[in-house]
Order: sequence, then structure tokens, then C-alpha cells
Amino acid sequence: MNAEKIPDIIIGRLPIYLRALQRMSERGMKTTSSQELGDYVGISAAQIRKDISQFGEFGKQGTGYSIPFLIDKLREILKVNQMWDVVVVGIGDMGHALARYGGFAERGFRVAMIFDVDPAKIGQKVGPFTIEDAANIVDRVRNAQVKLAMVTVPAAAAQLVADKLVQAGVKAILNYAPTVLNVPAGVHVQHIDPSSHLQRMTYYLN
Amino acid sequence: MNAEKIPDIIIGRLPIYLRALQRMSERGMKTTSSQELGDYVGISAAQIRKDISQFGEFGKQGTGYSIPFLIDKLREILKVNQMWDVVVVGIGDMGHALARYGGFAERGFRVAMIFDVDPAKIGQKVGPFTIEDAANIVDRVRNAQVKLAMVTVPAAAAQLVADKLVQAGVKAILNYAPTVLNVPAGVHVQHIDPSSHLQRMTYYLN
Repeated sequence: MNAEKIPDIIIGRLPIYLRALQRMSERGMKTTSSQELGDYVGISAAQIRKDISQFGEFGKQGTGYSIPFLIDKLREILKVNQMWDVVVVGIGDMGHALARYGGFAERGFRVAMIFDVDPAKIGQKVGPFTIEDAANIVDRVRNAQVKLAMVTVPAAAAQLVADKLVQAGVKAILNYAPTVLNVPAGVHVQHIDPSSHLQRMTYYLN
Repeated sequence: MNAEKIPDIIIGRLPIYLRALQRMSERGMKTTSSQELGDYVGISAAQIRKDISQFGEFGKQGTGYSIPFLIDKLREILKVNQMWDVVVVGIGDMGHALARYGGFAERGFRVAMIFDVDPAKIGQKVGPFTIEDAANIVDRVRNAQVKLAMVTVPAAAAQLVADKLVQAGVKAILNYAPTVLNVPAGVHVQHIDPSSHLQRMTYYLN
């Protein structure tokens, strides 16, 4: 297996498989087939077999996949067999939602710090966190060696925040702001955007 | 062009192109190339040309794409050259964020109604909306002929909400709940999940 050679589009499907397998496991299932997993996630069985086989021989002809084994392998491949600290920048509605979101831990993530620029918000509590002054992002994030961030600031502020995060050593940014971020090579950005998801569905409507 | 034959994976990229083109247009740009658009969205120029050519000859050799023209075409293809009403079910942090999100209109969407089951929330205002009783979803959504919904309820409640929405005639659900929804053929579901986006990036980190 050569990690560099696997298309990003395949990497993007692995979290979807992992999530489905974790749901199956919660329901007490022990094994599954590419057909069953495919029905679950809406991807063809052939595609699933092809994607997974990029990383090794994880299934057996006839008996399918062991769910706990495949979960372990996917967590290892995606490097979420460890906990990753994440910071949240911008504590509006979305930042609140992320700071209090209960679904991160089982997926390998832990919110570590939350920041805002608004003096009225700094020092306020959100769940277990105290909102910190965004002016201190670079020092705080660098010292804590946090590599992941979620950015939920207004579009006009997002690039400046991204620049600070990159300066602090952040390598992956989940961007909720409706704007494109320019980051140096080696820093990854994913854009999360409800409108794009909705548009992918309106295509099919009459 | 035969809409049924175009792979969903291509449809999924069109909103990303459209979003980038709208940002370019805001910056005053009038034309772009597949190379420039590709750099903007992190997708190869060849892939972009191939994706767009599925729908017709929208670019010119040498001069590239007219941004306003390509925006119009993509909006037409994705059917967002009209406004779509959307309902939000579940008015926790995320529901609040969606109800007040300012970025829908330019993408073709308009929140029409918001619902919750909590008697303490029903009747409260969120931005311009009054939280309605989720018990009335079927009648209210059916009468208003809304076809799109965003579901931000706890996982345990999500399937019941989806069933009601389907009964009311909803054809596309954006699911924020960390669970898989079973819906009949002809109803589309997209799952929106920050952990999956983060996992797609941790793969690349050391």
C-alpha cells in the first residue's frame, strides 16, 4: 500500500464506510457484505470492494467482512485510532453547536479550545469550555500542538483566521465560512456547506 | 444530455464549481479557465472539463468559460434558477444556526418553517421564524408543498421525523443526525457530518 497514490475521492468515502460500520456494530452486527454495506450507504458493492481492496485483503469470499476488524483497519488508515484535538474559531450559533456536539469522541476528535474576537463573548462558558480571545490563537494553538481547526467566522474574517491557524501549525481546517481559503501546500481544507448538499439533491427533483 | 445517466459523483461536484464561480463573480471576474477554476476548488482541470462537458459545450478553446454564462447553466442544471423552500426540524444549536444562516438565498434556498417537539420552544422566535409544533409537520409541510428539509434532531428521533416528512411529500432531506435514514425510492438523503470531513483530512497528517 502506498498512501500517496490513493485518490482523494476514495479517501473521502472511507469515513462514510466507517460511520456505517460503527452504526452496524452498535446494532449488534458482527459481519457484513459489500452488498449490505453498499445498500446502507448508497454506494455500489463493486465500488466498496474496489475502494477497500486498495488497502489490503480485509474481506473473505463468501463470508464478507468482520465488522470489528474492518472498523479497526479503517480507523488505522484514517489515523483516528488516536484522539485528535480540534479548536473552534468563531462562537456564533454554529460554533456553539460544534463546541457542544456529542458525536466527536467516537469518531476520534475532541474539542480542545474555542475562540472568538467579540469582547462580550470572551470569558463566557459554552458547555465545558471558556471562550478565549482570538488574539491569542497563535500562541495557544502552537503551545498545545493542535493540528486541526473548525472555522465558523464570517466570510470576511476567515482568511485572517486561517493565516493565524497555519502560523500556529494547524494542518487541517474544516471551513464553515462561505469563502475559499488560501493555504500553503501541506495544509488541508475541507469546506462544509449545507447549500451544496441541498443543490446535489435538487438536481434530481422535478 | 440524459440527466439519468450522469453519475451522482459528478452531480456532487457541480455545486462546488458553482460556489467557486459565484465567488469569482463577486470579485469582478468575467472569465475563467478550467485550470484556474481547478486551482480554486482543488480538482484537476481535466476533471472539470470532463464534468462540465457532460452537459454541453460551455467553454471555448483558448478563451475558457464565461463566468456569468457558466453560473447560469449550472444553476439551471441544478435547478436552483428558482427558489426552493426548506423546513428545519429540530431547533437546538444547529437548527438555530440553519434558521439564521444568511447564505441560503444566493444558493437558491429559503427557510420556510421551523419545527421542534419541545413545548418550551414551540412559539419562540428564531430570527424571523416562530418555532412550530412538530406534531403538525405533515399537514403544514404538505399544504405548503415544501419538498426539502433539514433534520437536526437527536439520532433516536430522526427516523420518525423522516417518515413524517416523506409522508408530507418531502423529496430531499439533509440529515444532520448521526444516524442512517431509511427512505423510499425517489427520496434523496444527504448526510452532513463534521467528523467525516475531519477524518478525510487526518488521513494525510503524520
